[in-house]
Amino acid sequence: MSAEIICVGTELLLGDILNSNTQYLGRQLADLGIPHYFQTVVGDNPDRIKQVLKIAGERSQILLFTGGLGPTPDDLTTETIANFFETPLEERSELIADIEEKFAKRGRKMSPSNRKQALMPVGAQIIPNPMGSAAGMIWQPRPNLTIMTFPGVPSEMHRMWEETAVPFLKQQGWGDNVILSRTLRFWGIGESNLAEKVSGYLEMENPTVAPYASKGEVRLRISARGKSQESAIALINPIHQQIQEIAQLDYFGADEDTLASVVGKLLLEAKQTVAVAESCTGGGLGARLTSVSGSSGYFLGGIVAYSNEIKQKLLGVKAESLNQEGAVSGTVAQQMALGVKKQLHSDWGLSITGIAGPGGGTAEKPVGLVYLGIATPDQETDQVELRLGEQRLRDTIRHVSECHALDQLRRKLLLTNVSE
Amino acid sequence: MSAEIICVGTELLLGDILNSNTQYLGRQLADLGIPHYFQTVVGDNPDRIKQVLKIAGERSQILLFTGGLGPTPDDLTTETIANFFETPLEERSELIADIEEKFAKRGRKMSPSNRKQALMPVGAQIIPNPMGSAAGMIWQPRPNLTIMTFPGVPSEMHRMWEETAVPFLKQQGWGDNVILSRTLRFWGIGESNLAEKVSGYLEMENPTVAPYASKGEVRLRISARGKSQESAIALINPIHQQIQEIAQLDYFGADEDTLASVVGKLLLEAKQTVAVAESCTGGGLGARLTSVSGSSGYFLGGIVAYSNEIKQKLLGVKAESLNQEGAVSGTVAQQMALGVKKQLHSDWGLSITGIAGPGGGTAEKPVGLVYLGIATPDQETDQVELRLGEQRLRDTIRHVSECHALDQLRRKLLLTNVSE
Repeated sequence: MSAEIICVGTELLLGDILNSNTQYLGRQLADLGIPHYFQTVVGDNPDRIKQVLKIAGERSQILLFTGGLGPTPDDLTTETIANFFETPLEERSELIADIEEKFAKRGRKMSPSNRKQALMPVGAQIIPNPMGSAAGMIWQPRPNLTIMTFPGVPSEMHRMWEETAVPFLKQQGWGDNVILSRTLRFWGIGESNLAEKVSGYLEMENPTVAPYASKGEVRLRISARGKSQESAIALINPIHQQIQEIAQLDYFGADEDTLASVVGKLLLEAKQTVAVAESCTGGGLGARLTSVSGSSGYFLGGIVAYSNEIKQKLLGVKAESLNQEGAVSGTVAQQMALGVKKQLHSDWGLSITGIAGPGGGTAEKPVGLVYLGIATPDQETDQVELRLGEQRLRDTIRHVSECHALDQLRRKLLLTNVSE
Repeated sequence: MSAEIICVGTELLLGDILNSNTQYLGRQLADLGIPHYFQTVVGDNPDRIKQVLKIAGERSQILLFTGGLGPTPDDLTTETIANFFETPLEERSELIADIEEKFAKRGRKMSPSNRKQALMPVGAQIIPNPMGSAAGMIWQPRPNLTIMTFPGVPSEMHRMWEETAVPFLKQQGWGDNVILSRTLRFWGIGESNLAEKVSGYLEMENPTVAPYASKGEVRLRISARGKSQESAIALINPIHQQIQEIAQLDYFGADEDTLASVVGKLLLEAKQTVAVAESCTGGGLGARLTSVSGSSGYFLGGIVAYSNEIKQKLLGVKAESLNQEGAVSGTVAQQMALGVKKQLHSDWGLSITGIAGPGGGTAEKPVGLVYLGIATPDQETDQVELRLGEQRLRDTIRHVSECHALDQLRRKLLLTNVSE
């Protein structure tokens, strides 16, 4: 038994809107443990909707339609499905009453075009729409095939799914299995490198382990199928632990953890504070650290020193270093980190200076050259040189630099805590 | 002749990531005037990828694949396509060289699993990937069928599409009709409000005008179809101008313009500089301003004053104001703006202080209460109070606050320039 998602709407084909409904329903099906192998997007065209319906009906037993339930002439989903199964439509008086009431509440009269939204194929069960005028349906036009329709508006679809569709699926005994997933997160190791280290796990069947990478962060998703929440968790936990041991410091957290939230936890545990000095990231490192609620417990503030004057004046960077080694250098990065630590009286100072591009690169100092500085509670300083590649986008270079800076602090915090 | 998009990746089915590639490619095909009627998502499973390939190959002449070009065992797109058409794979030495060079630049060695990414079906043309190790291909396995493959990473896919795929398509004489679009951007007006003001335009057929809204920004997309670039532009330009006149200051730019880039242009024109003082946004305002290449021409830097001590010490905020009115107040916002302007010797000072939540709100000062401060070149200060809603997410409150701050500066710059 498997489900399939079919999104109807020419606006999706034209790219006018981003399709978030497949992501939502995909997650929901995974959580319910209902397999789902295909998603299709098709325009507001009856012949092509029928083509898709034919293909999907032959390979899946539950078809979830979104979109095309509105009052306008190009909203064709319900009538096309009914037509495909040669079933007449009937006006449902409870839907007419519901729509009229919703319009009345807003002080408006139902428009004639909305009558269409009360038409359902004979035999269909209604999925009430608590928010709008587009009701959906649950319909079994033939044995072993269940069709559900939802409007394309995400907020309406979500409530109808949760309030009516999920209880129906569970009542049928579908989605009894629980599939749970946990995402492990890594920084400082490439996808192929990590995949090789944990290659044995990638072959497993339950749980499964699959790698993904995005902008320097690598993730492993562990998914387990079980009869209960507990049995799925019992399958995931040991694999999580084993992989964490293999990856050591390259592993930084799971699920909702971010480099910033993990650094925050470590700082809170150590009862220490941090301040940042930024050049090419312009404030992005501070924004990351403060993306975590409660960050005022360890983040004091920062100095964005975009110009050299400000690097000197507010961070105490030496004119000599700027002249001889340049603003993008390990020496300046260290002075920035120490400078902000002193100015803001923090335990740690963290800095970034680099060339984010697309302009400003030279043969010696190309775009993507970034120096991180770190000043420790013992007044020591350290630096890291990154070469992120001349071809990478300004945004990516800045983002990855911020991640590396957070990661450096994370590693230092972990090693300091261990050695104590 | 029509194209079809096929996205490969179990992570898409599971809802782990939002599929933005279909939106991008959908828009691109529309702009090129290449019809496109179906999009399919399928998991990392050779049999099901072949099923999809069979169906798509029978109804479309151009198949655009994204995803599944990585180095890990579940990246199966290239070999499955080759296998479907019973064509052997061959290792391409130019790809090996390219991957090795990319690894070397980052000071790393190519891992053995990356060799796989150099395998292409015999006869395929390579789509170079200027950013990563996953090259794509253009392949005509039989007459009247062209297959293109791209990695799933959006930034890589976009460049490969623009630099190699589009020129190829145009060379084939496909996409002869030109559809051009321009997105007009607005801040400070709601979607329904703007839609009412320009309602006449929303009924047009060529060009069409359609509204969208996202996190406070409202957009209108003007799309025109013409025989040439010039004729499409000639249809768009007058509508653009008319709508701009209707929206006045609420219109801030088009296409790639952002509030930050527009503010940057205005500052450059006025030969003025800005510095920022941030509390709840933690550096995000500076990060926005410096997301624009060349921002060193007008952005001097900033002070992130998360703690009250730093607000006093580095920004000269008065203890009395902090005690009596609190850190989240219009008075403190104005002092922050003036303080950073003085410290950094900039023409303008811009500040944000607020409660981003989810914690920290009170009945009097709820989550979402934000004050913006602005200090002008004439040493005057002004403030704006925002009430962004207690229900909104921390990220959204911070993002929208930054936009409002940039928008305030934009309006002041425009009014100043006009009055001169």
